[in-house]
Amino acid sequence: MAVYTEVSDAALTDFLADYEIGGLLSYKGIAEGVENTNFFLHTTGGAYILTLYEKRVRAGDLPFFIGLMEHLASRGLACPQPIRNRDGTALGTLCDRPAAIVSFLDGVSVKAPTAHHCAELGRALARLHAAGADFGMRRDNSLSVGAWRGLFDQAERQADGVAPGLAARTRDDLALLEARWPANLPGGVIHADLFTDNVFFIGDGLSGLIDFYFACTDAFAYDLAICLNAWCFSPEGTYHRDMGAALIAGYEAVRPLEAAEIEALPILCRGAALRFMLTRLVDWLNVPPGALVQPKDPREYDRRLSFHRQAADASAYGWSR
Amino acid sequence: MAVYTEVSDAALTDFLADYEIGGLLSYKGIAEGVENTNFFLHTTGGAYILTLYEKRVRAGDLPFFIGLMEHLASRGLACPQPIRNRDGTALGTLCDRPAAIVSFLDGVSVKAPTAHHCAELGRALARLHAAGADFGMRRDNSLSVGAWRGLFDQAERQADGVAPGLAARTRDDLALLEARWPANLPGGVIHADLFTDNVFFIGDGLSGLIDFYFACTDAFAYDLAICLNAWCFSPEGTYHRDMGAALIAGYEAVRPLEAAEIEALPILCRGAALRFMLTRLVDWLNVPPGALVQPKDPREYDRRLSFHRQAADASAYGWSR
Repeated sequence: MAVYTEVSDAALTDFLADYEIGGLLSYKGIAEGVENTNFFLHTTGGAYILTLYEKRVRAGDLPFFIGLMEHLASRGLACPQPIRNRDGTALGTLCDRPAAIVSFLDGVSVKAPTAHHCAELGRALARLHAAGADFGMRRDNSLSVGAWRGLFDQAERQADGVAPGLAARTRDDLALLEARWPANLPGGVIHADLFTDNVFFIGDGLSGLIDFYFACTDAFAYDLAICLNAWCFSPEGTYHRDMGAALIAGYEAVRPLEAAEIEALPILCRGAALRFMLTRLVDWLNVPPGALVQPKDPREYDRRLSFHRQAADASAYGWSR
Repeated sequence: MAVYTEVSDAALTDFLADYEIGGLLSYKGIAEGVENTNFFLHTTGGAYILTLYEKRVRAGDLPFFIGLMEHLASRGLACPQPIRNRDGTALGTLCDRPAAIVSFLDGVSVKAPTAHHCAELGRALARLHAAGADFGMRRDNSLSVGAWRGLFDQAERQADGVAPGLAARTRDDLALLEARWPANLPGGVIHADLFTDNVFFIGDGLSGLIDFYFACTDAFAYDLAICLNAWCFSPEGTYHRDMGAALIAGYEAVRPLEAAEIEALPILCRGAALRFMLTRLVDWLNVPPGALVQPKDPREYDRRLSFHRQAADASAYGWSR
């Protein structure tokens, strides 16, 4: 949680002069951002989020992310809508960083989701996949199976210091997943990071999805597998089958899964867990001195992996015809 | 800048059930807080700031701070208005910490103030002193002249490592200020921390004052001296006499200074500078490992002190009849 870049009132006033959203009333740095610097921005035109993209986001990817949010919002999905400036572009420069203003979305992240929340999430995920169908841009998933060995190489020697036996388990998982990773599943735009922080509810209803900065072009069912990992386990690694069933059923209420996707679900879930275990492990082993952000614990995903290794088929996750 | 306490959606929903401000729509941790944890809070009733008081604020002082904001708001001063819960109290408990909800104030802090901003500040400061006149509670200034020697004792041995000669200069200042500190000046409620961060502007107009957590009962002219230090110097220590003149004239347009206050101004300014130099010095020498907050540089106030030592009378600060 951090504001990496301080923005002065004078710099912001200059920046806003390029937009047609009225005069500046207030802005406050938001503590939650991990990758970027975010401000709550209030102008005479309304409430917005101002984001400064810090160096962890590749500038070349920004047109994809911004374009995707614009596309999804235009299709009626509740997500932040980028605001274009007077030049017609939604990507500007502020304090020497790429910067964008998006509409402010109300809603609250649920810390302890229930099966009801999972069902809502499943429907929203399928709607996101449908809304992205005619989006014209493409971005390969830079954190898919092809990237995992490179991540593991950075962490292998220190892995057993984090959890005993982790290096050997990961070697075995990697070999199996590289050999069996499914190709040619139905795909398109996926969110790829739909953790509870990125899903807003007002009362019991899902009110919006945020943070599209890992979005990419990949298999739809892999996005579902990421959500099953992120939403349906306790931190201790217990899988809540009722929550998984609700998530899958919610998804299928909008977009039924194909046979190949159902078949692939256990391996996709195992891969998704390995992906988050590996990125967390690398971050865990490379906390810079004076870091403002507490790294997330890779062992949570090590525990999820032991569930996935035992899962015989999609029914282990709560799927049923 | 930090959120010291994480607040879950469930804990916040429970807390809000005691208030009549509608249903929860959104809350975001604000990065700017130094002493406390602050959230921007949006409900169906409006926009608010939720504050959790962390251990640097003495719980026994909270009724004074909250009562003062209520009093000042009721007198028409633009400051956060505490919201009372169904029991009629504005101070509750959230995540085991004292917590309060206040109205959200629009406005932006000015990083590089001009003489115009200083004039606005002067008027607002005098209005604050007037509005506090019939406030019934009292809180001694725990960071006034009587506290400075104790602060210096914690830092004396390491002071010269921060700035050469700082220990000797401070010993001399302390002896002089303890001997000559004025008593019996007109006084009442003062803000005591009216730095640029705590003063909001919309466009050119001052829109509000915030952060009353150093407010206390002390000499009005000492509050003015704090503002002259905080607003009218460059970081390099150059005093901007035109800004000081505007600040004092703005103040006097609402509440003319008495002869004793004008006479005391140089010593009050010197004392105010020593107070901030000392608290910054102690914080500078005691940064806890992994601190989320960057300490402020005490040398800025060491440089201001060399100006104050040369100031013959109030005219050095821009005062004129």
